[in-house]
Order: sequence, then structure tokens, then C-alpha cells
Amino acid sequence: MEKLEMLYEGKAKRVYSTAKEDQVIVYYKDDATAFNGEKKAQIGNKGVLNNAITTMIFEMLNEKGIKTHFIKKINEREQLCKKVVIVPLEVIVRNVAAGSMAKRLGLEEGFALKTTVFELSYKDDSLGDPLINDTHAVAIGAATFEELKVLYDMTATINDLLKEFFLKLNINLIDFKIEFGKLPSGEIILADEISPDTCRFWDATTGEKLDKDRFRRNMGNVEDAYKEILNRIKGV
Amino acid sequence: MEKLEMLYEGKAKRVYSTAKEDQVIVYYKDDATAFNGEKKAQIGNKGVLNNAITTMIFEMLNEKGIKTHFIKKINEREQLCKKVVIVPLEVIVRNVAAGSMAKRLGLEEGFALKTTVFELSYKDDSLGDPLINDTHAVAIGAATFEELKVLYDMTATINDLLKEFFLKLNINLIDFKIEFGKLPSGEIILADEISPDTCRFWDATTGEKLDKDRFRRNMGNVEDAYKEILNRIKGV
Ligand SMILES: Nc1ncnc2c1ncn2[C@@H]1O[C@H](COP(=O)(O)OP(=O)(O)O)[C@@H](O)[C@H]1O
Ligand SMILES: Nc1ncnc2c1ncn2[C@@H]1O[C@H](COP(=O)(O)OP(=O)(O)O)[C@@H](O)[C@H]1O
Ligand SMILES: [Mg+2]
Ligand SMILES: [Mg+2]
Repeated sequence: MEKLEMLYEGKAKRVYSTAKEDQVIVYYKDDATAFNGEKKAQIGNKGVLNNAITTMIFEMLNEKGIKTHFIKKINEREQLCKKVVIVPLEVIVRNVAAGSMAKRLGLEEGFALKTTVFELSYKDDSLGDPLINDTHAVAIGAATFEELKVLYDMTATINDLLKEFFLKLNINLIDFKIEFGKLPSGEIILADEISPDTCRFWDATTGEKLDKDRFRRNMGNVEDAYKEILNRIKGV
Repeated sequence: MEKLEMLYEGKAKRVYSTAKEDQVIVYYKDDATAFNGEKKAQIGNKGVLNNAITTMIFEMLNEKGIKTHFIKKINEREQLCKKVVIVPLEVIVRNVAAGSMAKRLGLEEGFALKTTVFELSYKDDSLGDPLINDTHAVAIGAATFEELKVLYDMTATINDLLKEFFLKLNINLIDFKIEFGKLPSGEIILADEISPDTCRFWDATTGEKLDKDRFRRNMGNVEDAYKEILNRIKGV
């Protein structure tokens, strides 16, 4: 399967059409951004690492019965995926307080939440991907209440699967962001990526950060952290 | 009933204890603030007008079966109310897009929402009363899911009653903010105020703003607008 036209270039990936109308090739770049694109850099090898990590996570989720866009890994930087129309919402799960939510609510990072937090942000770079709630999403036509129920049900299951998967690798899944897409049939499936770019991973013993916060906060060893995640998933 | 100790001084009101343990006197000031206290001024007579307006609205709600803190108006600036522990959430209802939500979501003021929007903001001046969702409220212990259900059910009924009440006065209720409190029994009742400080009122014919936006946006005739609301409610 070959890349034809570039359909979309995002901050971390490019999406290409293929000879099959219903399939796309997703290409993983080394570009990293943070704080709504204010901070920009390249992380050596990130595209290769995130493609490998996302591949193994989506294969696990597919096996566990979650419907995803992932078909197969093509090469170091490319995946073949089902083409979807992305639901313009980021769904964020927070098992532990960290990052923007900790700041917003005046909580210490690591604060034990009394319930798992589910957040929506409206995918619109020009508005800075604002936090919204269900009624906002429906009021502006981003989703229906029925679609939100599907998103939340799938997201809760994905959280359970990911928490268990990573805990076996001695990693606490602190929070993560996922995106969903719609097939022509209307079915909603998991799309985009799951990687150290989109999750917070803390070593369960040492608390060491093994994710994009190393880039956001200039902590160094960013590539090493991504490699460590891949190695633990591969069991090496 | 006389004011004893001042229990709390807020931006627009003061709350005093009384000889009865379970009752407070709420005193309405002329102070006006906007943008989390950045803009400050006095609006002549505002306390008198808001006390009169809130009184008539709470009397109407009490008659319609909504449980509220309001007992009676004492004098021009004071009300006798049931003492409650305020739930640290502002509940906001938006029938039409305006103000901070319109800005946040990139909508024109007046945009017809596909559903009524209900928002929570966490009452914490030092955090700027941030917008939160249900899971945040529960995660930080501001309320339980069961309490939120009560808040939303009461709020939806109050919205219906207020919309109808104001439409008869040729006023569109664009949005409003309410606060709830808990009685020692645990029962949740409507507290605080409902006035041009806490609602957006647009004349249904001309669209003229008859609320605090006249102050926020330096439109002039602020006191006149509050008087106009009171006069329409009084039917004069
Ligand atoms: N299966 C898919 N079909 C179509 N678009 C997709 C698919 N999976 C992901 N996308 C979209 O492609 C883009 C991926 O690029 P990325 O660099 O992550 O974008 P962004 O800058 O929005 O984060 C995103 O907008 C994502 O929603
Ligand atoms: N019945 C009540 N019992 C106790 N406190 C109340 C009651 N009604 C309102 N309050 C609280 O009293 C304060 C009223 O003052 P206000 O000037 O509106 O405060 P704020 O600056 O927080 O807006 C608010 O914090 C409000 O929550
Ligand atoms: Mg992305
Ligand atoms: Mg107030």
C-alpha cells in the first residue's frame, strides 16, 4: 500500500490517502509541540518510537475487543489505518491529578482524586482546545448525547485495559488523551495514537516521568524515556 | 430580627448572624465587580434594587414549590434567610450563547444553542472560579454525583420557571448563575440571589441589555436597567 495525496498535516503526524478509499496511511514525525504550539522542537527518533508504541497498544486493544482504526504497521514510521472522520473532541482521562488540571484546580500533582476524571476538550487550535462539558459539546453540534455515551463507555473500558497493561510493566498510568473517529456507517472507533506524547506514565517504584512532560518541563532524556516505554512493552 | 456578628463579606453582599442559630440576615451592597474582581465600582442604589428584585423572584419560586433560603424582606437592603452551608459550585444555565462561553467557544453572542448548556464553576476566587465538569466536582469533594443530580434537576426547573416569568415581562432570559446551600438536615436549597448581577436579560423586542453587562462593557445607564427590571416585575 502506497501513500498518495497528503490529506492532513498535524503537529505530530501526517495522514495520506491510499488506493483504497476507506484506508489512510498515518506517518509519524519527530516534531514535538507543547502549550498549544508555543513550544516547538524535534525529539530524535520520536516518530519511530511512537509508531512502535502505538502499534503495540492498539494491537492489544484490538485483541481485547475495542474497535480501533489500526490495521497494521507498514514500516518504521507508517501505519495503515481505517479512514475516519475525527470527532472534534479530545477525551481525557485522569486517574491522578497532574498537569493542567492540577494547576486549574489548585491541586498538588499526585493528589488522589475521589473519582476518575473524564474531560472533553474541543479540538480547535485557534481557540486553544478549550475544556468543555457534555452540554457544550451537544450545544455546538460536536456530538450528540448518545454519541457522548458511546465515547465515555469506550473510554472507561480503554482506561481499565491500559491501567492494567501498564501496571504489569511497573508503570502508573496517570492520565491520557484519546480521539475517536466515525466510519461511513456511523460507527465510532478509537483513532489517532496512544503514546508518551498523549499519556503521562510514572514509574510505579521511583515515580520517574517517562513521557512528554520531560520535554514540556525541560527535564532532559526525552528520547530515553520513550525508548524505556517501548522496551518495557516489548518485554526487553 | 437584628443583625449580630458579620459572618462573611462578599463582593456584593454581607451575611450576618441573628439571634436564631438557623437564620441569617443578608445585606445588599452597592458594590459591583467584574472579571474576577479586576473591575470595581459602585452602582447607585444597586443594593436596594437587587434586594427588591431577588425578593420578588424568590417569592415566586417559593410559591412554585422550589425550596429556597428566602424567608422575608426586612427592609430596603436586608433579607432574612435560612442559614446554609454554601455548596462551593456556581451553577450556570445558558439558553443563548453570550459572554465568557461565546468567547471560549468562538460563537457569536445570540447563537442559538442546540441544547441548553449547564455549567459548573468551582467557587474559589484565588483560582478565578474555574469552569469544571461533574467528575472534577466529585474528584475534589465539592459534591457527590447524587448531589449534582439534585442540583441539575432543581436548576432545570428553575430555568423553566424563570424563562416563563420573564418572557411575560417581554424579557429573554439569556443565562444566569445560581448557588445552592445545605441545611443541617442535608437538604439542598436554592440560596444567594437572582438579579441583574447574576442574569443576562435582553428585552425581547429590542434586544436591549438590562443587566450587569451594561457595567462590564461600560454601556451606561446601569441603574436605569436594574430599575427597568424591577418595574417590569412589579408591573408598573
Ligand atoms: N484514522 C484516521 N483517519 C483520519 N484522520 C485521522 C485518523 N487518525 C488520526 N487522524 C487525525 O490526523 C491528525 C493527526 O495528526 P496530529 O499531528 O496528531 O494532529 P494534531 O496536530 O491535531 O494533534 C489529527 O487531527 C487526527 O485527529
Ligand atoms: N443563606 C445563606 N447562608 C449562608 N451564606 C449565604 C447564603 N446565601 C448566600 N450566601 C453566601 O454569602 C455570600 C454572599 O456574598 P456575595 O457578595 O454574593 O459573595 P461573592 O463575592 O462570593 O459573590 C456568598 O458567598 C454566598 O455564597
Ligand atoms: Mg495529535
Ligand atoms: Mg455573589
